[in-house]
Amino acid sequence: MTKILLSEEHIPRQWYNIIPDMPAPLAPAINPRTLKPATPEDMLGIFPMALIEQEVSTRRWINIPDEVRDIYRLWRPSPMYRARRLEAALGTPASIYYKYEGVSPAGSHKPNSAIPQAWYNREAGIRRLATETGAGQWGSSLALACSMFGLECTIYMVKVSCAQKPYRRSMMQLWGATVIPSPSGLTNSGRSILANDPDSPGSLGIAISEAVEDAASHPDTNYALGSVLNHVCLHQTVIGLEAREQMKIAGEYPDVVIACCGGGSNFAGLVFPFLADRASGRDIRCLAVEPTSCPTLTKGVYAFDYGDTAMVAPITMMYTLGHDFVPPGIHAGGLRYHGESPLVSQLYNQGVIEARAYGQNSCFEAALLFARSEGIVPAPESSHAVRAAIDEALLAKEEGKKKTILFGLSGHGQLDMAAYDAYLSGGLEDYDYPSEKVREALERLPKVQL
Amino acid sequence: MTKILLSEEHIPRQWYNIIPDMPAPLAPAINPRTLKPATPEDMLGIFPMALIEQEVSTRRWINIPDEVRDIYRLWRPSPMYRARRLEAALGTPASIYYKYEGVSPAGSHKPNSAIPQAWYNREAGIRRLATETGAGQWGSSLALACSMFGLECTIYMVKVSCAQKPYRRSMMQLWGATVIPSPSGLTNSGRSILANDPDSPGSLGIAISEAVEDAASHPDTNYALGSVLNHVCLHQTVIGLEAREQMKIAGEYPDVVIACCGGGSNFAGLVFPFLADRASGRDIRCLAVEPTSCPTLTKGVYAFDYGDTAMVAPITMMYTLGHDFVPPGIHAGGLRYHGESPLVSQLYNQGVIEARAYGQNSCFEAALLFARSEGIVPAPESSHAVRAAIDEALLAKEEGKKKTILFGLSGHGQLDMAAYDAYLSGGLEDYDYPSEKVREALERLPKVQL
Repeated sequence: MTKILLSEEHIPRQWYNIIPDMPAPLAPAINPRTLKPATPEDMLGIFPMALIEQEVSTRRWINIPDEVRDIYRLWRPSPMYRARRLEAALGTPASIYYKYEGVSPAGSHKPNSAIPQAWYNREAGIRRLATETGAGQWGSSLALACSMFGLECTIYMVKVSCAQKPYRRSMMQLWGATVIPSPSGLTNSGRSILANDPDSPGSLGIAISEAVEDAASHPDTNYALGSVLNHVCLHQTVIGLEAREQMKIAGEYPDVVIACCGGGSNFAGLVFPFLADRASGRDIRCLAVEPTSCPTLTKGVYAFDYGDTAMVAPITMMYTLGHDFVPPGIHAGGLRYHGESPLVSQLYNQGVIEARAYGQNSCFEAALLFARSEGIVPAPESSHAVRAAIDEALLAKEEGKKKTILFGLSGHGQLDMAAYDAYLSGGLEDYDYPSEKVREALERLPKVQL
Repeated sequence: MTKILLSEEHIPRQWYNIIPDMPAPLAPAINPRTLKPATPEDMLGIFPMALIEQEVSTRRWINIPDEVRDIYRLWRPSPMYRARRLEAALGTPASIYYKYEGVSPAGSHKPNSAIPQAWYNREAGIRRLATETGAGQWGSSLALACSMFGLECTIYMVKVSCAQKPYRRSMMQLWGATVIPSPSGLTNSGRSILANDPDSPGSLGIAISEAVEDAASHPDTNYALGSVLNHVCLHQTVIGLEAREQMKIAGEYPDVVIACCGGGSNFAGLVFPFLADRASGRDIRCLAVEPTSCPTLTKGVYAFDYGDTAMVAPITMMYTLGHDFVPPGIHAGGLRYHGESPLVSQLYNQGVIEARAYGQNSCFEAALLFARSEGIVPAPESSHAVRAAIDEALLAKEEGKKKTILFGLSGHGQLDMAAYDAYLSGGLEDYDYPSEKVREALERLPKVQL
């Protein structure tokens, strides 16, 4: 069997909330103005109560609303594949499986959270959502979600991605959204960045500042975040819950589960449901893969830091490269974030999961081998997971060991042809960890005392 | 049920060959040099014997090789959807189903024939395939197929499409193919076009001439055509064979089956298996949809004509606008062909199927409504079928009639954002049938006497 499909009845009815199963209690989110723990009231200016409750809930299972499952049915359950042709190309004794989220209308895993976020906001009487987007995957997903529920949508898009991925912008507009290159002159945060650096390529951190400010200053508008937060990781667990069922059908259990990791929601979505199996004695390695140009887990510090550059978003305990660190403009725009999901961060800090960083050339090399054997063109972000899966398979070959590898192919790269063009013509830079810039940035962490 | 999935065992084991079920015997293909019926030997310079046999076979069922089914499994069976949200948006009593071929790695139905063509050629010891491509769908599909079987691939891409769809070109290169803008200076056909019109935007007819000439002049190289020919229509019947199973699961039978129609293979693929049911007394309407700028069925003549502009490809009996008619550069590049599959042509001539033409603005309008209700962004070609399906559904509403509509969504439009951009900014031209140019072109039809 090459493709493992599930029927619609197998779309999960509940999301898996990992909070009650974490190794230690989570540190509270901190209000950036008071530097004290944030209250639900602090959050109500930008989030609906239902999502604030999910953010801190200790219930292990949370019901998925029928209206959300109804939209999920447009592409879920997503397929799982056995990568037999890649295995043959590598000559590995390992069996390689991948869970493919590129079948969603936006081409990635992001709609899994965009749809419920739009729905909960509409239920709360909100008329418009503001958000940021890097590679454009999250922005197009929220545009899609808003068009499904009749909400307006304003998207602050990282300026360098706007230039690299013009067709992502068009896609958001096609679904009815307004797209604003960030930093923009429309917000205080944007204006202050432009005053210092008129040519700023932008970053997720800056775009978040602008979107949060927009939402906070308009009562009919809320903010939606595409990663990092607990409720976003929660929504993404549909990926891993389905994948667990599909591995059962395949009759194997993964020795290692691999996913690329930017803000962490893709990684959390695939991995958390498998971590739940550890309670029943299952041993499983989970590997987060990030770019060397933005090595949050592998080279960052575990500390309280702002979620955004302008210090208006909540402070959380997480791995960070410093809130004003601006990563180089690599093509995997979705992995250019200075911080990391607090949940993923604690799991890494406690040694529950592993992390590894790769340069973009070795990721594109892996993506090309994958495209020429399995057919599907991976998104640059997903190519990080492809690289790690191939390396795990080659290690199994070297060691002469049977091994079961599962990785997340979080999106397709059909809108990233400019990146492949640059790679094929030898024009991609590999960025090392810019340690001095980060050391400086880390000196500007907030002084939180609990 | 929104999505109707089939498991891998339901990938058809045989293609359906409509030739024995045609209303009348097919006219023979004619050798363009002798103006006499072409012999298999005439064809051997550019096609392998297995495909020549399929071209004229009168067996109703033809086995699909295991190696081809093995690659089909990467995306087949393709999903069928009930378009419940589109139905609600239209307020129609009709039920609307669509069979979605955009899940293939190339994003359209084209790999259904590219894969077997590459395989039969490799079995025949061929080292390289040459082909033409318009919108780039066929070219990228053949590039994919060649990469799967280790063949080299040279693609003559219509110059205007090269400019409109640069990312399609990149995708072909990603899968290892060489892409040449057509008309090129590399062939006699290309040079003679450029001598008359150095700024020629190119056309499928011209690109076919170049690819055929390339194949005919290199013994290790064959030619592969993405539509029109009987064996291409044959391979595409996997679409309709699966769709018939899926309609059974849905518990409905279509009153009308709709597909866009350029060279005819997409239309043939979805429709032919349903036409087979007419033998058992089923009544079914089949509607071919084409652009007003290239209205081959609705405004062309039924006559012997060349398949290409330079008169090197075989002559067939078909609907045609004249082999040197160059359609305007509309965004649905895959529908810009002067001729039509001889099989589809005879069915239309005999009144078995219907045809209808639309301008591109009304097709994009329909595509936008579809994207905002069903999520998926249609390819410009497929938007012609969306338009017709919506009109059939609105007619059912006007008449207060229950009706079951099935249409083919032959590909996604994620690489066609430039076209959507142009539509959203009001910049698309609608072309009328340029009757004088065609009348002139029809005076240059070949004088075939059997």
